[in-house]
Amino acid sequence: MIHVEIIGFAAGTLTTVALLPQVIKAWKTKLTRDVSLLWAVALTIGVFLWLVYGVFIKSLPIIIANVFTFILAVIVLVLKMKYK
Amino acid sequence: MIHVEIIGFAAGTLTTVALLPQVIKAWKTKLTRDVSLLWAVALTIGVFLWLVYGVFIKSLPIIIANVFTFILAVIVLVLKMKYK
Repeated sequence: MIHVEIIGFAAGTLTTVALLPQVIKAWKTKLTRDVSLLWAVALTIGVFLWLVYGVFIKSLPIIIANVFTFILAVIVLVLKMKYK
Repeated sequence: MIHVEIIGFAAGTLTTVALLPQVIKAWKTKLTRDVSLLWAVALTIGVFLWLVYGVFIKSLPIIIANVFTFILAVIVLVLKMKYK
């Protein structure tokens, strides 16, 4: 069971951390021309629902990963709306 | 239990479908300047690990969602490498 949780945490860490270089890139360049607004919107809502799902099935990797992913997704969305 | 699965499927549908407008945008414009390469790489690997995790904990929403997300993530990654 411990090994399974490790895979879950590795998955969550990667898909969460994945957004960080996108946030940094948009923040630094102040450009989000080629970033899809629809992607950012759907991602933010979807990640929030994953969070709810994780709470229901009591999966700690899903909960923790999606808390951070949600925060980063909101930042990406704000940067996309701010810089177009 | 059925309601929980519905939330999981809704979450999976949204985070999967989310990548579609990004794929279409990159495909049409042939531009991925503001899209982070590191994001695409980490996302692809992370989604693959979510798939493995879903198989282990026998969560159908996680499995189905991440099969499609993985395919789209690979396409985004290829487009990013192709169009820079």
